[in-house]
Amino acid sequence: MNKKKLINDIHNQPKVVNEKLINFKKKTAEKWFLDLRDMICDSFLKLEKKYSENKTKINNKTYDFEKKKWLRDGGGGGVMSTMRGDLFEKVGVNISTVHGQFSEEFKSQIPGAEETGRFWASGISVVSHMSNPKIPAAHMNTRFLVTGEGSSKKTWFGGGCDLTPMTNDKKVEKLFHSHIKKMCDKYNKNYYEDYKLWCDEYFFLPHRNEPRGIGGIFFDYFNSLDWDKDLEFVRDVGLTFSEVYSNIIKERMFQDYSKKDKLEQLEKRGRYVEFNLLYDRGTVFGLKTGGNPEAILMSLPPQVSWK
Amino acid sequence: MNKKKLINDIHNQPKVVNEKLINFKKKTAEKWFLDLRDMICDSFLKLEKKYSENKTKINNKTYDFEKKKWLRDGGGGGVMSTMRGDLFEKVGVNISTVHGQFSEEFKSQIPGAEETGRFWASGISVVSHMSNPKIPAAHMNTRFLVTGEGSSKKTWFGGGCDLTPMTNDKKVEKLFHSHIKKMCDKYNKNYYEDYKLWCDEYFFLPHRNEPRGIGGIFFDYFNSLDWDKDLEFVRDVGLTFSEVYSNIIKERMFQDYSKKDKLEQLEKRGRYVEFNLLYDRGTVFGLKTGGNPEAILMSLPPQVSWK
Repeated sequence: MNKKKLINDIHNQPKVVNEKLINFKKKTAEKWFLDLRDMICDSFLKLEKKYSENKTKINNKTYDFEKKKWLRDGGGGGVMSTMRGDLFEKVGVNISTVHGQFSEEFKSQIPGAEETGRFWASGISVVSHMSNPKIPAAHMNTRFLVTGEGSSKKTWFGGGCDLTPMTNDKKVEKLFHSHIKKMCDKYNKNYYEDYKLWCDEYFFLPHRNEPRGIGGIFFDYFNSLDWDKDLEFVRDVGLTFSEVYSNIIKERMFQDYSKKDKLEQLEKRGRYVEFNLLYDRGTVFGLKTGGNPEAILMSLPPQVSWK
Repeated sequence: MNKKKLINDIHNQPKVVNEKLINFKKKTAEKWFLDLRDMICDSFLKLEKKYSENKTKINNKTYDFEKKKWLRDGGGGGVMSTMRGDLFEKVGVNISTVHGQFSEEFKSQIPGAEETGRFWASGISVVSHMSNPKIPAAHMNTRFLVTGEGSSKKTWFGGGCDLTPMTNDKKVEKLFHSHIKKMCDKYNKNYYEDYKLWCDEYFFLPHRNEPRGIGGIFFDYFNSLDWDKDLEFVRDVGLTFSEVYSNIIKERMFQDYSKKDKLEQLEKRGRYVEFNLLYDRGTVFGLKTGGNPEAILMSLPPQVSWK
């Protein structure tokens, strides 16, 4: 991706003529992330229940998402929904809507925020670590950003979704990418290739010379100047992810696995931790800009091992 | 610590008049780190054997350090010694002697290397994670640095040692610090206070607002212009650490612990990982300057959990 061009396009966005329209967009995006949160939690909870019903010999606990509200010091806040079950060893679905002022150090890094540092951001983030090593870990995140003041406000979407299988898994790779490609192609024939490449570049551990997983798509500074269509794409990322990942879980949740598979999973999770703490922008940036450490580090796996 | 003054002192070191003397210092330091490695491995291995003899019901495996040589692309290399036992869940003792050229990005950060980027460094690093949560994790590192070229070479020592108890442990804190203070006081009445403070500042997780452990000492740019005395201090750091930590292990290795203690340990180790990957200079710097990822990440605990 030509990121410089994308950032430049953000800077060159037409002036905002209608403050009400920006507010409508903010509300619409925020509402969508909330609805998507409910849909994803429902879908995952149903899977957890289905698993429990068939595996009641393990125990007769029933699980549910635990919701926790949090407030951000600088303005806004969010709700973390987490579940620790037998199928979902740890899954977190976090929504947040925050606003405020970036510090001097960071405002130069955010298009449109260079002058005043003002920003508003709403989004959803999903990270799932499964007990069964035959089921990949998953990550999905979409967000809507507004920076700047008055008529010179800039807006864009960002996000993506990707899978991290715990063992070599060409089958899931092919399946996941084919669905994501089909979804992307509905909007623009370049999206899949561009955003797949960006994802591969982003989720890479240079010190290990290894990708984090099998990728998916990753996009930022996304604004085609057709907001309705852009939102439609962003909605589809969330819905397609939820459907495809839920289907993978359904198909694999009763599969047997060996001790070796489990060990491989715990070590693969180590790489996940290394990526998130060493390189992930959201994590490093979030922790350094006074984000909620509990919500940010919700992405870390429940059990991990290093050789 | 006034780090600026220390760095300034490095810059103002007298010109090197005798190249042979620098080479003698390099060889002497390198040989010391090697000898200390052997002493520490011997001491730890004896403890592991003593534990095994008394706990043969667990299994009848015998453990030993596994040695692995590695070469650095830019010049030099090292030897990792690791043991995964019943008492020492994972302990790594790494020695290395490396030399080469810092990249443009990093040379400005290293006193004496600003112009040519040339450096030579030898050191030892010990990280130990114990099975029994009643025994703290430990870290010790000492190193000798030479930067620059010809008669304008600069040299200094760096290092320190610190403990990370897995549960609140005032007893071990008091014991460890009293021994370290006694050792420091033999050389300079300011060392303990200065280097304890530096350690507390360094091993801190701002995003958690938590210290990593109970500290110890941490020093860098250490050069009193009396090389023999400085080496004596650095030797004493290694020897005192080894003795005090071995005694703590000996005293506690058969202590009972609960499931809750174990869980606390696994979560405390999560903080350890967070610190090392987010903030530790050696880790972040090492990985970004082409260090050996296996040797650098040897510090990561074997089993970890996040809530």
